[in-house]
Amino acid sequence: MEQILNSSYYRETKIINAIKSRAQNATLNQGIDQLQIVYDLYTYININTNISSTNKINMIFLHGSGMNRSIWEYHISKMIDYLKTPTINWSINKIILMDQVTHGDSGLLNKEKLGVEFNWNDGAKDACLVAQTEFYPLTNNNNDQEMRYFNVVVGHSMGGFQALACGALYPYLFNLIITVEPVVVQRNPFNSNDMTIMPESFYNSLISKMDDCFDTELGYNEFMQKKSFYTKVHPIILKRLIEFEKIWSLRDGSEKLSTKMNKFQNILCYLTLNPGANWLIHNLQFIESPVINLTGENSKWTPPENEKLLRTKIKNYTLDPIPNGDHLVNIENPDETLRKIVFHISKFVTAESTREPTKPLSITQRQSKFERDFVKFKDKRTRKTISSKL
Amino acid sequence: MEQILNSSYYRETKIINAIKSRAQNATLNQGIDQLQIVYDLYTYININTNISSTNKINMIFLHGSGMNRSIWEYHISKMIDYLKTPTINWSINKIILMDQVTHGDSGLLNKEKLGVEFNWNDGAKDACLVAQTEFYPLTNNNNDQEMRYFNVVVGHSMGGFQALACGALYPYLFNLIITVEPVVVQRNPFNSNDMTIMPESFYNSLISKMDDCFDTELGYNEFMQKKSFYTKVHPIILKRLIEFEKIWSLRDGSEKLSTKMNKFQNILCYLTLNPGANWLIHNLQFIESPVINLTGENSKWTPPENEKLLRTKIKNYTLDPIPNGDHLVNIENPDETLRKIVFHISKFVTAESTREPTKPLSITQRQSKFERDFVKFKDKRTRKTISSKL
Repeated sequence: MEQILNSSYYRETKIINAIKSRAQNATLNQGIDQLQIVYDLYTYININTNISSTNKINMIFLHGSGMNRSIWEYHISKMIDYLKTPTINWSINKIILMDQVTHGDSGLLNKEKLGVEFNWNDGAKDACLVAQTEFYPLTNNNNDQEMRYFNVVVGHSMGGFQALACGALYPYLFNLIITVEPVVVQRNPFNSNDMTIMPESFYNSLISKMDDCFDTELGYNEFMQKKSFYTKVHPIILKRLIEFEKIWSLRDGSEKLSTKMNKFQNILCYLTLNPGANWLIHNLQFIESPVINLTGENSKWTPPENEKLLRTKIKNYTLDPIPNGDHLVNIENPDETLRKIVFHISKFVTAESTREPTKPLSITQRQSKFERDFVKFKDKRTRKTISSKL
Repeated sequence: MEQILNSSYYRETKIINAIKSRAQNATLNQGIDQLQIVYDLYTYININTNISSTNKINMIFLHGSGMNRSIWEYHISKMIDYLKTPTINWSINKIILMDQVTHGDSGLLNKEKLGVEFNWNDGAKDACLVAQTEFYPLTNNNNDQEMRYFNVVVGHSMGGFQALACGALYPYLFNLIITVEPVVVQRNPFNSNDMTIMPESFYNSLISKMDDCFDTELGYNEFMQKKSFYTKVHPIILKRLIEFEKIWSLRDGSEKLSTKMNKFQNILCYLTLNPGANWLIHNLQFIESPVINLTGENSKWTPPENEKLLRTKIKNYTLDPIPNGDHLVNIENPDETLRKIVFHISKFVTAESTREPTKPLSITQRQSKFERDFVKFKDKRTRKTISSKL
């Protein structure tokens, strides 16, 4: 996997300031602490120069609670095989894999600053910021051949929520939204503040799968393979996840093995769906882009109301269940998940193939475009009537 | 006015990149053009060092359609008199006056890039970006005496819409929202795309007040004083507005006097309330901060449904009409408007005076704060029940 990634992409790991105004108690020093985001930027190296395409895809992948950006490396390495297929009518431009502020390397970097609130919508705003930073301008080169650029967000579970929130926040940032088992509605006892309230037994059951400190590497490996959420994960992804999360650090005077994900931040993710979800539920109607929802056919993590809500509220919605998939279908059945992602991108690109390519205009062309557009705009937005003066 | 501004504030004019993903047709080269924002940053110089206050206010002022940042200079110069009153329990930290991307100096800078769409919500996102850039971190100095910082947004008309949108987009960015004659609901004939549709006669009436090119200075002055929207504006503000908007440029081979505001961009502002307003209407419920709505007692610009909607949807809402005020009350009755702004800030600060001041914590303090907060958070969000295992 590593070898394919290195030969197919130019890889950079970057750090950026996260959005500055966050939910209350998201940081310990409200208004002072600056959180940061670590992300990998992959720029596709087209080795076979004969294979070119007018359609360039920018992608950002968003992980679920407790996970990190490394889980998507398998998918983007395997994607190369598809890109080499002559029937595929698109190519990759850039791919972003990011760690949410409480997760992975971002979590490490922000360790001393993280409070008890991780509003998932703040995570979506962070994702939009990173995508805008890396994807825009879509082309820098005035002499570029004409290209069509499409931005795609893919998110799993909490990341699926955030992919939808990205579409609601910036309706023209992503041309296509692909969610995998997105979490929006969970059954929750009524309370006046609309907070997530969890049965304590369920809380205990969750946290028992979240150890973050180990005396030995053997103990760590055993936990990850046999007691964590990841027991059924595809072996290549699990191996990478185990290696990515592992850090040695001094605790209570001796070297211990920890995961990058802090156990408390991990459980907090599960406790912070509401009230943030209320915002998303009321904003699904403002998503302009098509949404492809890949669910795990056997998954019971979200109640049926979740899928029903998305289907009812999102204007352009397609459900595509993955056979035999559970909630972690993206990392348990990664090949089938990727196959569907590629299929839906191809279908979308084909449908958009008549769209005008992106090419910078000269000043004269700009002037006449504005004049033409203005006449059209004015005609659409005014109407002949008898009276009504200022 | 100029002299007071220069002696009371450290003034800087700055340029920043506007948000990158905008409404369709907001720029001529979608996804390529980078719009910019010009703003003035005023940092208060406290001359009389005896007058200090724990409560520091950051403010951003948002102008209405066709106007620019200069209209607020009068208010922030007059504010100095209040700050010198010993009964006032707050002081200014920073003030931002910004030109929206199609207005004033921003409009000049973006001239060749502006398309036919100015989504007012994009303008709100720009305002949030500028405020976050300048206001955060709230304090840089670890040795600062303990301070309470409050961010306040003040917006008039379209700027009032945007002040509300700021509160909905970033519920914790502004502690207090002050709207002056905010435009959210306008009567609009039903159409399936929910666009603003204007009677042509009304369009013509509006555009007749929008000349942007003059052969002589006399003609320009006469237009601004007698035929524009600004005939009743306070003389000091009108003088500044006339001077600020005026630029000489080459048109059709000869030097002509223009306004910075382009006539077409000006009328486009009026045609772009909907469908953007639909978003705001559904998001008023997510505003967490108190909203003070200063209306002009005699204004007929917005229908009664407008105020009713705000009153019904906003959680913490106060209406305070300005006697004898019309829609442009902020620049026609600036002293009374300012008096009310100062009054409401003082009232808010008094109510918040028990809030813990902002002071950076040491690492040990952070750790124990997190532990305390976690226990509280967990207790609030879990509930003892009989079963429910993972």
